[in-house]
Order: sequence, then C-alpha cells, then structure tokens
Amino acid sequence: MTTILDGKKVSITIQDELAEEVRKRNLIGKKKPHLAAILVGDDGASITYVDAKVKACERIGFESTLIKLPEITTEKELITEIQKLNNNISIDGFIVQLPLPNHINEQKIIQTIDPKKDVDGFHPQNVGRMALGLPTFLPATPNGILEILKRYKVNTVGKHCVVIGRSHIVGSPMSILMSQNYYPGNSTVTITHSRTNNLKEICLLADIIIIALGKAEFLTADMVKEGVVIIDVGINRVTDETKKKGYRLVGDVKFDEVAKKSSFITPVPGGVGPMTISSLLMNTMNATKLNNH
Amino acid sequence: MTTILDGKKVSITIQDELAEEVRKRNLIGKKKPHLAAILVGDDGASITYVDAKVKACERIGFESTLIKLPEITTEKELITEIQKLNNNISIDGFIVQLPLPNHINEQKIIQTIDPKKDVDGFHPQNVGRMALGLPTFLPATPNGILEILKRYKVNTVGKHCVVIGRSHIVGSPMSILMSQNYYPGNSTVTITHSRTNNLKEICLLADIIIIALGKAEFLTADMVKEGVVIIDVGINRVTDETKKKGYRLVGDVKFDEVAKKSSFITPVPGGVGPMTISSLLMNTMNATKLNNH
Repeated sequence: MTTILDGKKVSITIQDELAEEVRKRNLIGKKKPHLAAILVGDDGASITYVDAKVKACERIGFESTLIKLPEITTEKELITEIQKLNNNISIDGFIVQLPLPNHINEQKIIQTIDPKKDVDGFHPQNVGRMALGLPTFLPATPNGILEILKRYKVNTVGKHCVVIGRSHIVGSPMSILMSQNYYPGNSTVTITHSRTNNLKEICLLADIIIIALGKAEFLTADMVKEGVVIIDVGINRVTDETKKKGYRLVGDVKFDEVAKKSSFITPVPGGVGPMTISSLLMNTMNATKLNNH
Repeated sequence: MTTILDGKKVSITIQDELAEEVRKRNLIGKKKPHLAAILVGDDGASITYVDAKVKACERIGFESTLIKLPEITTEKELITEIQKLNNNISIDGFIVQLPLPNHINEQKIIQTIDPKKDVDGFHPQNVGRMALGLPTFLPATPNGILEILKRYKVNTVGKHCVVIGRSHIVGSPMSILMSQNYYPGNSTVTITHSRTNNLKEICLLADIIIIALGKAEFLTADMVKEGVVIIDVGINRVTDETKKKGYRLVGDVKFDEVAKKSSFITPVPGGVGPMTISSLLMNTMNATKLNNH
C-alpha cells in the first residue's frame, strides 16, 4: 500500500489553521502578522514566487508589503531598505527574494537582515541555532518536509535516512535536522553528493530517501528497497509535445516505478513544492509572536 | 601497515609554527595575539584545562589573561565581564571555560560573546557560518581532527565517513564538515547515535570512523573493515591496579585489535586530545588577524 504524501492538501490545511489563528488574534485585539518582501529586478520566476507569497498572505489575513526595486539598485541602497524593515516595528518578518543581481553580494545582504525577522531562515545565526537545536526559523523546504512527515505520522526514529544533495537550503539542513533528537528526526542520516561513489548501494540501505538533486527522474526502482519513504524535492522540466506548454514537470524520482515500492511518496508537482509558502507563513506567525505582537 | 596519527607531534609542530609567526610579527611591530579565559568556580578539571591553555600561550609568545571568578558569580556579573572583554581592543579572542555552575544559563553566556572573539566557535553565528562553509572559528576538537587528517594527507574524498555520536561540540560539526566541498571533506557521511539500530552494519561500510561516544573500548575489530581510518575522540578512565593512580586512560576504540585492521589510527592518549589546545591557539591567531591587529 502506497500513501501519496499530498503536500498541496497539507499546505491548505496549514493555511486554514493560520487563517483561524489570525481570526482569533483579531478578536482579542492582536495585530495581523505582517510579511514584507523585497524583489530586486524583473526576473520572471522571482516575480511569480513573490506574487504567490503576497497572495497567500491576503488569503489568510496577513498583511503584506511588496517592495520592488530596479535591477540597477546598488548593494548600499538595498542595505538601506533592509535596515528600514529591521527598524519598522509594524513588519514582523521579511524576505529578500533570491537570486539577486550579480553586482550584489547575497551573503552580505542576508547578514544585514535582523535574525529575529529572518523568516527565510538564511541568516548564519539562524542556521547555527538550527544546527544547535535551538528555536529558530527553519528554511522553507526543510520546514515543509518535516511538516509533511509529521502530519502523515511517518516513523523516522532509528530509521536510516539518506539525503541526496548537500545544498545549503535543502540537503545540508535536512541531514542535520533528521539526525537530531526530535520528531521528525532521530534517524541515522547519510548525506550523499556529487563525490559519493556508491550511491546506489547506499540508497538500497535507506528507509527514507530525501532527494534534492535537480536531475529529472534520477532515482529509479532498482535503487530503492521495498517499503521506502520518498521525499522528492526536485522540480524539473522535461520536453513533452503533448502538453500545451511543450513540457511537463517531473521530480528527481522516476515516480511510477518507485511509487510501487514505496510506503509513502511525494508527487511532483503537489508534494514538497506547495509546502514552501506555508512554511514561510508559519515562520511569519512565529516571528509575530516572538516580537511580542 | 598501520600509521599512528600522532596528535601530540602535530600539536607541537603547530605550536612551533605559531611561535615562529609571533616572532615574525614582532619584528614588523605587530602585536602579540592575546587570549583571555574566564573561569567560574573551582572545578578541578576546568582549572587544569585553563592552566594548560595559559601555559601554551606563554610558551609560544601569546599574551594571556586569566579571569577567575567565584562559584557564586551571578549570570549578570558574568555577562558584565564578557562585555568588558568584547570591548577591550587588546583582547583578540576569549573563552568562557565550560561547564558553568548550574545557576548560569550557558547558552545565554555563549551568545553574549562577540562572535569575532569567540575562539571556541560556540556562538550560534559561528556554528551557522561553519554549516554554510563561511570562514569562521571551528570548535577545538573538529578543528584538531581536520588538521590531523590534513597533515597526514589522509584521503577523504568520496570516502564513506561514519560519525558515532551527535554532540554539538564533536559529532554534529564533524558530520557537517566532512560532507562539505573542501579537503579534508567531500566524504559521504553517516551520522549515528543512541537511536541507531544497526551500528555494526554501518561501521562495516566505513572507510573512516570518527567516534565520540564516551564509552571505553566500545569499537571492536569485528565492527570495522580492513584498511579503515580511525579517529578516536573518547577519553575514558578504566580501573587499573598496576598504575599509581589506580586507573589508565583509554579511548572509545579497543585500540590493540582495531589498530591491526587500520590504515591510520589515533591513539588515546596522544591523538585527538593534544590537538584541542593547538586549535584554540590557531583560532586566536586568526582572531588577531581578523581584527586587523
């Protein structure tokens, strides 16, 4: 029996819960959580992502502020904008949509954000708090994955979790979180990457596989054991002439064949992807409480 | 052929190098690195550790300041002392010797230290910078282990490294560092801990084992494969009536039998232990340069 981990459904549930919490807060005179986003330049994908975040805020009763800056914005000007948001007590949390234009140092920008308002969880101080198991803002994708595992009551304790990919926003934090003494977690964790020699052998040991590689349908049925839990973070376009757009989206997992061997599996689309906005909104609610609003 | 990873020898080499660097800096009028240590209370082991650090500073030409505070020091008083060190430009780096008395919140104290002077590498900001692969102060034991691997040119790339133990000061940072895209590192890393079910099976896959468990002679020959690299962080006392003190020190590894199967192995004592002070001194030199002294 394979259970599809329906991220879209979980995401809607979370947003309904947050909307209800906003409503209850309103009744006792507490302020609406307020998320701000800075968008530099006019990258199409970034505009889509930021718009989706703003719309989600509206839907659940959060306030939102979108600050659009031109591509030619200097690093110094961007830092000034960030400092305004740091000091603006009506803003509970904010993000700077990445990637930034090449003339701006991303790491410097991230480190300018007040860690208490860093709802993307990218500031080194928040990354460190995560690694130390202290309360913090978890980055959107890891946060979303933990939430899916939790809501489907997937057993992770003592399980062997193999993470494929070591990016700072998915693979590396996932490997840290899954090994910690919390639920979901307490797994034996193996982190694999481009220098790993014997990936198939390692995957065959896995009770849980979290893959964030960006390679279409990379993980095949012969690489997994019966009953495995699959979390597929990949979103890849593959040419498909039968589609209007000329492509379709697939994950890093060859879904049809791997699903047959899985106990739980996230689809693409509709798995991890829809969770990221809900993670951001959860962080914004937590930031609002953290700042005593 | 088994090579003993002689931490004592490496540690002396590093301290000689630092002494030479201090001498050269003196010639061009640059200040001596200055390490301060705060010791609260009169725990015997802590006094021994701090004294050893002070003596090492003297030996290699660093300045050192030891601040001894009574057991009854309040958290607030300790924070005041830390702030003085944060603001004292003659101090390049400092440590607060742990553990602290129970009435003081260690995490709060650590977070009061200026990250630029946090030569123990315990501040969340420095832990986060480590996890993100940014320049930082690495904690003493992980730093020492990397240095041993580097100086003995142990091949880590693409190797399967199994870390036993997930403490915040050894296991967890080691698992992060060994998986990163640097040398020593680029290993496939498995982190194991008290909830791991099949430790022996996993250890038998390991090319490199880093054990920080605190269990005398836990790792036995039947748990490792031929040619393994062993890094033993454990220091345990076992009763030994033939010794004057009535005990001897052993690691987490059953040395005699495991050494026979190992390509490289650290002894206990004389392996990882002696590296920790050198790590602290390296960090202090780096802090001095970081603060443009």
